[in-house]
Amino acid sequence: MSLTEETIRNFLEKVADSSPTPGGGSVAALAGAISSALLEMVCNLTIGKEKYKEFEEEMKIEREKCRNYREKFINLIDEDSKAFDEVISAFKLPKDYEGRKEAIQNAYKKASAVPLETAEYCIKLMESGIKIAEKGNKNSISDAGVASLMAKSAFHSAILNVKINLSGIKDSDYVQKTKNRIKKMEYEAENLHRKTMEVVERWL
Amino acid sequence: MSLTEETIRNFLEKVADSSPTPGGGSVAALAGAISSALLEMVCNLTIGKEKYKEFEEEMKIEREKCRNYREKFINLIDEDSKAFDEVISAFKLPKDYEGRKEAIQNAYKKASAVPLETAEYCIKLMESGIKIAEKGNKNSISDAGVASLMAKSAFHSAILNVKINLSGIKDSDYVQKTKNRIKKMEYEAENLHRKTMEVVERWL
Repeated sequence: MSLTEETIRNFLEKVADSSPTPGGGSVAALAGAISSALLEMVCNLTIGKEKYKEFEEEMKIEREKCRNYREKFINLIDEDSKAFDEVISAFKLPKDYEGRKEAIQNAYKKASAVPLETAEYCIKLMESGIKIAEKGNKNSISDAGVASLMAKSAFHSAILNVKINLSGIKDSDYVQKTKNRIKKMEYEAENLHRKTMEVVERWL
Repeated sequence: MSLTEETIRNFLEKVADSSPTPGGGSVAALAGAISSALLEMVCNLTIGKEKYKEFEEEMKIEREKCRNYREKFINLIDEDSKAFDEVISAFKLPKDYEGRKEAIQNAYKKASAVPLETAEYCIKLMESGIKIAEKGNKNSISDAGVASLMAKSAFHSAILNVKINLSGIKDSDYVQKTKNRIKKMEYEAENLHRKTMEVVERWL
């Protein structure tokens, strides 16, 4: 069953228990989904309002994008837990099994690739977020701000999960390439968040 | 029905729809609950491990605190939506009704007090978070980091909701006192987060 079919109360219970999944990686994707949903709400509170008529078409486009991101993040909640469960399974392979090391390495690569995808979607989401903060209903400007805060922490949470899994990977070329990519993404994410909060704070 | 009895998928749908609740205030409280649950998990992955035996009693105490904070945040998810629904109800009172202005003012005060409470619990949670990052299982250090990122964005999200509701309050004494309190809290929250991330980054 998908984790997103759990009630919020049960999902929190599953996070809290002594199993490492769902953990920080799934939480990062969930925060991305929450941020997407908030941005959709701001679009919905803008579309159809006379005052914001000139931005109506753009808000419809952004709403559609955010809806797609939400669906993507929902999948990533489950994918992240599965990927980390595979790391644990690989470690449980018999120590004398020839393919054990390779299985561990492959599992770690997958477990770093999933949160990297989460992080990438956070940046796309924040690109929508800044437009929605600028052109959306100003009665909901705090929601646009919360969406940016959630996307930013989803991004950094995902990156922490990439990094902890990278630390198990022996392919130094893969590690270095991923680290270089992270640096660029960190710059982009901080930049988008800062600009969005500048818009938000003008109205608060 | 409590919002936390919704499935995650349905809760996200309710956030996204064209009703302003649940919105950023409930999302802030949810992020606090998620952060609490992650810290409980780190405690659970530490307790019973020989390597961390010296911290066992402290981890049990922090786990209990985080469990209580989680319950508190869960209540605040619903309380925040209810408080904002009351603001909307007050605005819908007949314009010639004598008590309308007072009803609006009282509703705004309540709608600023609820996220202020969320913000206060975020600081308490971050005080537990730094201890758990320092003394908890280092295999879960990324989860302690994600917990701090979530608590920090829960805090700032709650503060945005305090501010937007303060902007409707005419009692300048109340507004000024709350703003002064926010300033101190912002300093504390940033400080706790920074220190926690210093611990986390030492291990990643």
